[in-house]
Amino acid sequence: MIAVVGGSQCSAEEARLSEAVGQELARRGVTLVCGGLGGVMEAACRGAKSVGGTTIGILPGDSREAANAFVDIPIVTGLGLARNVIVVKSAQAVIAVDGGYGTLSEIACALQNGIPIVGLCTWSLSQNNQSDTSIIPAANADEAVEKAIAAARAKEGKA
Amino acid sequence: MIAVVGGSQCSAEEARLSEAVGQELARRGVTLVCGGLGGVMEAACRGAKSVGGTTIGILPGDSREAANAFVDIPIVTGLGLARNVIVVKSAQAVIAVDGGYGTLSEIACALQNGIPIVGLCTWSLSQNNQSDTSIIPAANADEAVEKAIAAARAKEGKA
Amino acid sequence: MIAVVGGSQCSAEEARLSEAVGQELARRGVTLVCGGLGGVMEAACRGAKSVGGTTIGILPGDSREAANAFVDIPIVTGLGLARNVIVVKSAQAVIAVDGGYGTLSEIACALQNGIPIVGLCTWSLSQNNQSDTSIIPAANADEAVEKAIAAARAKEGKA
Amino acid sequence: MIAVVGGSQCSAEEARLSEAVGQELARRGVTLVCGGLGGVMEAACRGAKSVGGTTIGILPGDSREAANAFVDIPIVTGLGLARNVIVVKSAQAVIAVDGGYGTLSEIACALQNGIPIVGLCTWSLSQNNQSDTSIIPAANADEAVEKAIAAARAKEGKA
Repeated sequence: MIAVVGGSQCSAEEARLSEAVGQELARRGVTLVCGGLGGVMEAACRGAKSVGGTTIGILPGDSREAANAFVDIPIVTGLGLARNVIVVKSAQAVIAVDGGYGTLSEIACALQNGIPIVGLCTWSLSQNNQSDTSIIPAANADEAVEKAIAAARAKEGKA
Repeated sequence: MIAVVGGSQCSAEEARLSEAVGQELARRGVTLVCGGLGGVMEAACRGAKSVGGTTIGILPGDSREAANAFVDIPIVTGLGLARNVIVVKSAQAVIAVDGGYGTLSEIACALQNGIPIVGLCTWSLSQNNQSDTSIIPAANADEAVEKAIAAARAKEGKA
Repeated sequence: MIAVVGGSQCSAEEARLSEAVGQELARRGVTLVCGGLGGVMEAACRGAKSVGGTTIGILPGDSREAANAFVDIPIVTGLGLARNVIVVKSAQAVIAVDGGYGTLSEIACALQNGIPIVGLCTWSLSQNNQSDTSIIPAANADEAVEKAIAAARAKEGKA
Repeated sequence: MIAVVGGSQCSAEEARLSEAVGQELARRGVTLVCGGLGGVMEAACRGAKSVGGTTIGILPGDSREAANAFVDIPIVTGLGLARNVIVVKSAQAVIAVDGGYGTLSEIACALQNGIPIVGLCTWSLSQNNQSDTSIIPAANADEAVEKAIAAARAKEGKA
């Protein structure tokens, strides 16, 4: 189970990337978990469904109707933005595709919980002019999926 | 998607009932959502899996390892008992099998959210010596599933 | 710290009771915690402030502006009804004044967490025709406060 | 009401800064809200109490006993790290003192909710080699408090 996180609105380029990520995850038999709404989340779900994958959407509001059309299993939390924590904790690795401050909070949550996080054109972090290298960089969708699966396996192996 | 709620420890009779509920839900193509732990939850998941159903476990803790062996999709919330709200909100109807105060909180949450709730040997509520009849009574597992599906359909129809 | 729980809309009689509860808590130097909205919550806060008490409102939404005018310290959760859990867990005892299914969920949460719960014209619970006697009954506001404080002290003593 | 966020363990220098921030907030009549535990949180509360301020601790666990000795009002959430959202949302501005990934998640949450955030030796954010300048920099405790109060006022004025 791998999470794809990113904005509920996104550029055409980000949508293309997210769709490719969703497709590649499904091809490798990985269940996709996300926030269940539009933008990056919808594109990733669309990609996964196009090749027969399974998609889970952890929704912020009180209605399952808010899920995008490509979510198989809507989880209704009613928790608002606090639902981001559940998206991340339910995943064995997280792929962040650009996005805004919501994506940053999901990146932070993954780092805080020791869950591997792969970044595609997303935030860079530094402290006292020193880069934080915890976000695993990826140049394209296939590399992102490859690295996320490898990192999830490495972590399970250690555990 | 229908929730089965009940204690994480249960009697042999409650386990038998829960297993039959899970089986009947799966036979009718309904996805089962529950709290993902033992007792009533485990028995219901075991029943569903015995006939090829799909099971979701909304876990209270921080580890997917806590899910019972019959959960297909573990959702990790880290929210403790507040995760009960998510089990209920994600369901189109709820079946309560006996259980303790945790089950009572899930019944209350369903009533509060207008989600149909069917009770099998569970709590009875009254106020000023007047019974509250909102919990739909059922005499056995098949009747509980039948009534839960009918109530979920009636509610969707109205919505 | 003692919680007063009840509906966000209430009858004149319930408001009178809630106000008296708030007043008596404040007179005895107890900080009042509640859900911060109208009805029972507002009446209890008004009572507490009328004699110089301190009031905390744990709000379900995203805005501190939603707090009633008698809340000193608004806590903004954005969690919707899941905030009920926080109202209850933050209290050393809970007083329920009538109310609806929301109040029932707070009663269930208190029972589940072993926090003493005193009821004023609220729900009665039974199972298999046997009354559950865990809700401590009170005939009026003073008795409710008296019993809540005594139960909180007894519990701390044991702990 | 202003939040101070930072690690539950911290260096002597961070503790000194946090204590000065707490002191200055209390001197200006601001109520301090924090996560209620040790490190930066405890130092800030100690500073506030040393000059008679009021302190609120939003605790992650199930026990009020976990609060540091300088918390006046412990709020018990049982939500784990998801309680960070409540610390931030309850504040009119946030001051981050260094800290780790937990602090980053609180910074992200403030940015996401449009709550002013002032940073003292904390994270820097960038995207595509462009700095994000949303974190208001401060050189010392007094400046941090000054800027946090000014930003909170500016925001309320606009609202």
